[in-house]
Amino acid sequence: MEHFFDPQSVVVIGASNTPLNLGSTICNMLKDYLHYNGNVYAVNSKGEAVNGYPGYSSVLELPQAPDLAIIIVAARHVPGIIQDCARKGIRSIVIESAGFSEGGEIGETMQREIDQVARQNGIRLLGPNCLGTLSTRDKFCCFYGVNPSLVEMNQIFESPGNISYIIQSGGVAVLAMESLYYDVVGVNKVVSIGNKCDVDEADLIEYFQNDETEVIGIYLENIADGRKLMQAARKSRKPVLVYKVGKTREGALAAMSHTAGMANNDRIFDAACRQSGIIRLQSIDELHSLPKMFTEMPLLAGKRVAAFTNSGAFGGISADLLVQAGLQMVRLTPQTQEKLKKVGQVFNIKNPVDIGPAPPQTYLDIFEILLSADEVDGLLPLLSVWQPFVIDCLLELMKICKRYEKPAAIYTPNAIAKSIAIRAKHRIPIFETTEQAVRALAVSQTYCASLLKRNFAGGRPPYGAGVKTDHRSTGEAMR
Amino acid sequence: MEHFFDPQSVVVIGASNTPLNLGSTICNMLKDYLHYNGNVYAVNSKGEAVNGYPGYSSVLELPQAPDLAIIIVAARHVPGIIQDCARKGIRSIVIESAGFSEGGEIGETMQREIDQVARQNGIRLLGPNCLGTLSTRDKFCCFYGVNPSLVEMNQIFESPGNISYIIQSGGVAVLAMESLYYDVVGVNKVVSIGNKCDVDEADLIEYFQNDETEVIGIYLENIADGRKLMQAARKSRKPVLVYKVGKTREGALAAMSHTAGMANNDRIFDAACRQSGIIRLQSIDELHSLPKMFTEMPLLAGKRVAAFTNSGAFGGISADLLVQAGLQMVRLTPQTQEKLKKVGQVFNIKNPVDIGPAPPQTYLDIFEILLSADEVDGLLPLLSVWQPFVIDCLLELMKICKRYEKPAAIYTPNAIAKSIAIRAKHRIPIFETTEQAVRALAVSQTYCASLLKRNFAGGRPPYGAGVKTDHRSTGEAMR
Repeated sequence: MEHFFDPQSVVVIGASNTPLNLGSTICNMLKDYLHYNGNVYAVNSKGEAVNGYPGYSSVLELPQAPDLAIIIVAARHVPGIIQDCARKGIRSIVIESAGFSEGGEIGETMQREIDQVARQNGIRLLGPNCLGTLSTRDKFCCFYGVNPSLVEMNQIFESPGNISYIIQSGGVAVLAMESLYYDVVGVNKVVSIGNKCDVDEADLIEYFQNDETEVIGIYLENIADGRKLMQAARKSRKPVLVYKVGKTREGALAAMSHTAGMANNDRIFDAACRQSGIIRLQSIDELHSLPKMFTEMPLLAGKRVAAFTNSGAFGGISADLLVQAGLQMVRLTPQTQEKLKKVGQVFNIKNPVDIGPAPPQTYLDIFEILLSADEVDGLLPLLSVWQPFVIDCLLELMKICKRYEKPAAIYTPNAIAKSIAIRAKHRIPIFETTEQAVRALAVSQTYCASLLKRNFAGGRPPYGAGVKTDHRSTGEAMR
Repeated sequence: MEHFFDPQSVVVIGASNTPLNLGSTICNMLKDYLHYNGNVYAVNSKGEAVNGYPGYSSVLELPQAPDLAIIIVAARHVPGIIQDCARKGIRSIVIESAGFSEGGEIGETMQREIDQVARQNGIRLLGPNCLGTLSTRDKFCCFYGVNPSLVEMNQIFESPGNISYIIQSGGVAVLAMESLYYDVVGVNKVVSIGNKCDVDEADLIEYFQNDETEVIGIYLENIADGRKLMQAARKSRKPVLVYKVGKTREGALAAMSHTAGMANNDRIFDAACRQSGIIRLQSIDELHSLPKMFTEMPLLAGKRVAAFTNSGAFGGISADLLVQAGLQMVRLTPQTQEKLKKVGQVFNIKNPVDIGPAPPQTYLDIFEILLSADEVDGLLPLLSVWQPFVIDCLLELMKICKRYEKPAAIYTPNAIAKSIAIRAKHRIPIFETTEQAVRALAVSQTYCASLLKRNFAGGRPPYGAGVKTDHRSTGEAMR
């Protein structure tokens, strides 16, 4: 599987100098943006070189059997090319071309031919109808059509992170990566699986157990082998977050036209998630908004949450949301309330704790009192940044969370653009809405409970496991 | 009521030069940031001037009876001050001080005293426990504690808009205003009603019928007079959007500690909204995210929506969301599908219409075909901005929507920070998530249906009414 993410040599079959050729965009990215070190070959009908990479008119002519073949030609040529690859001894192939099982009967017949050749020759196939793979640490990417003007793409490679994505759609992969650029966590690997005729989400969950991945995010349009997925998820020691399209008949039909999936029964999938510890996502945005709760904060070991706000209304709003999410507004003990009273400036010493204009020390005292209280499992700080010192308090909060091994899902009730800017600049895991923060607490608790149920308590501590001082430096140190 | 938003003279009772005095922040804002033209007086125990505004030790000593008195002193002094105001002949008073019915028995007794004096003297009271009023066109604001470093505050006044807010919490008001700064629509007036002992949301809905307001956004922690609210909403010719906290017992309790409301039955409120045409909001963020659907787009006159995407996956996601929101994925007629086929580059000519890499004209042709089709009531464009020309296409789309009097709820599947930046720069009403865009279509259709049910069809056209070329210039022209 390693060859899909870190090949030492690749051939791009279908790369040429024809205008608008998609294969050439892969060559350009490898050469000009990633400065890829391995050998790259181009295969096209004229046998012409592409951006300085030597060209051949057939895979059979290559001077070596590359680690990875990337195919991006019209679908009807693919079966023949796969046969050539097999003869040449290539064992890992990405088929990016569309027009197979999502495109009707002829496509399906070709698909069967391809599968047979692959099976007989021990070839692993990714796709077809996919965007390929990306690995930030290996500085490798075989996505086609990536616009060089996307500055974010470069920056994603510069700060590798610990989220890996398995995505059955190129567009969703790009959205998630672009979003993470404005967030505190970064990408480890991304793989677009398309019609997944061979390599599927279960194979990749297994593969991501043994690399720098800390959280696995998955977007699915269909599930071909539910049992295999459940088994892989059940064994996973890393959170598996899945968004599946097709809750309604209309959604399932639309997905079918896109990646050829069969409509799956949505309720059965729901039950399967609960049984196997999969965290089922409620929106596409949760693919990039929730992982930071796992990489930057300890897990929520119980359901009792204290809310703390400098903006009264958000106490009431969050109480509603916490209860609706299956969590509890903790009843603070008289001792805790007494301590809060002594702090001063506190309007409400019961949960939600509500303060008026107050100096930084008041914030820090309240963090300490709430997180050290036995009855509190986690914190929901809803703190408007009206003065810059609130940012410093939040940085301090991250340390206090680590000390008590209890999480805080931070929301700053400011304009979302402002909150995102603060998050990016100060590396504070700020959620974008109250709903998102509450949801992060809920999934953290669900995941923690599923670890215990799946008997991972011994292998991985039920909470505290996710804490890293700095995922970027840690990630780099692991190389 | 006009005196609350556009007074020609005001007295700030409680403004002094004591450090951290809140009343002085009101004087500073009026003088230094708003360059308020009317007379301002300060009343404090020393009778000292504040920031150049003359000071007196009692309201009774003022050289005139100001249009508006703003009281921001400890609660225990308020009843006496109200008596003085009554004697002086002041008829509009904002009580910003806290510590009344939300603060226990003594507070409640004071509240009753105040109410009696006000009633006997024909005084209108706003608050207590509130932030006051703001009017962008009148360049007036009596919010206390506003941080001069909030650059956004100034900019809100520079581009008056057409949304007016009635908010039972200062924090929510600030969040909404700050968010609109990054959006395409602007603020007309904001009023924080606090414990609403006299002026309440119903009075203000009525008042906002006769000014530049186009959409009314309301945040409530309790409802004191449900019948009055329903009556005002039923008569409103402008959309009334309400977020009410307290869906759960815990939320209601938290709200009580904040503004002294009684827990209201949530289901009864839900039914009341449906009957009176109130659009009930599902999150605080909808207070600032949804109004642009009313000010920038025609109303959705039916439920049949066409989705159009350049990012395949979003077709399936939006189909799920549309159906869940009670809308329909329109079945395009064979004629419409034939037209789409002729455009070329279209992967899927059924709804959701899905295109690959294509030039601008393809986008424009598809907008035209879909919006001109009789079977289509509105559009859900889910168009990633990977190349800048997509922005130009969206600007063109706004014109096509106006021509066909059908709305489009635009979502750009890019990082939210990027989408917000495009929205602010190009003045395109882009929603921040797919969910938000679908929700905007749903509320537009609900509102359109409620207008017809309430027999407003004659007075206000059922759709097309919301369209403005540029609300800002229009707003200015109305002055």
